[in-house]
Amino acid sequence: MINTANLQGVQNVVSQGIDFPSYLSGFFEGEGCFSVSFSRNIKYRLNWEVRPSVSASQNESRRQIVDSIQNYFGCGFIRRDLSDKTVKWECRSLNEIHSIILPHFDLYPLITTKNEDVKSLRKVVKMMSNKEHLNRAGLIAIVNIVKEMNPDGKRRIALTDILASMR
Amino acid sequence: MINTANLQGVQNVVSQGIDFPSYLSGFFEGEGCFSVSFSRNIKYRLNWEVRPSVSASQNESRRQIVDSIQNYFGCGFIRRDLSDKTVKWECRSLNEIHSIILPHFDLYPLITTKNEDVKSLRKVVKMMSNKEHLNRAGLIAIVNIVKEMNPDGKRRIALTDILASMR
Repeated sequence: MINTANLQGVQNVVSQGIDFPSYLSGFFEGEGCFSVSFSRNIKYRLNWEVRPSVSASQNESRRQIVDSIQNYFGCGFIRRDLSDKTVKWECRSLNEIHSIILPHFDLYPLITTKNEDVKSLRKVVKMMSNKEHLNRAGLIAIVNIVKEMNPDGKRRIALTDILASMR
Repeated sequence: MINTANLQGVQNVVSQGIDFPSYLSGFFEGEGCFSVSFSRNIKYRLNWEVRPSVSASQNESRRQIVDSIQNYFGCGFIRRDLSDKTVKWECRSLNEIHSIILPHFDLYPLITTKNEDVKSLRKVVKMMSNKEHLNRAGLIAIVNIVKEMNPDGKRRIALTDILASMR
């Protein structure tokens, strides 16, 4: 769960009028990304590692919001992208996404179709918590959930290739 | 001021947990743009029209947030940009920016350096309300405020050209 001491710290940097958790969801409505990627990795029995991710970027000149996200959630990491002068907060931990981040978006849900990505991520994270991504049927089910996510984004690996190259 | 009947309507589309005004400021932190543009127009005594603007864009597939912005503020207009499949809400009315939009960002301020753009817009809008943009000294002062705004953005007209071509 969210560390309320962290929340107190964040709430101190914003105006008294702002409800920071609501503000954060508004920011993620525009700038957040809820995704699942696949990485070819022969250490995994099926050849593929499944990697859930929640992230948000901002121009370097406005990194205060990125720092506030990390303070609020108390997890994830921040890295600078020198190529486009942005700063990105990202959490890739299954456990932290499950126990800290998704509960926030349960209480303060997005209002657009991006909420469908949150719901899909929630399904995948639940399956992964049950180790279903380690068996063939589970991995196929995850690929089928992920192919509906982020319809406006680009995908680096074709999902059909994953299905074809599973051991 | 914000029409509370509109606010009620918007609040109905979001979860009970969300404070919509805070959520909206969070969305504008990422996607909002507070700007002042100059348009060459010989109908104006000094050759230049000053145009304040507040806007926010989103992918067409997520236009619900854009509609909610218009419902909440009860002003501005929405237009589709077919070139990049986005939908943009924008308010260009001096009176509405002054009496409806800026009061919102007084109560629910941005937390990053983008708030400097809000403050600069507020100065320009106040000067325009006092008709100061119609005299040479006022217009020069406005140009000097605007040149500090949106440091990450592109400017189509060089501000030095405006100063040089004033009548």
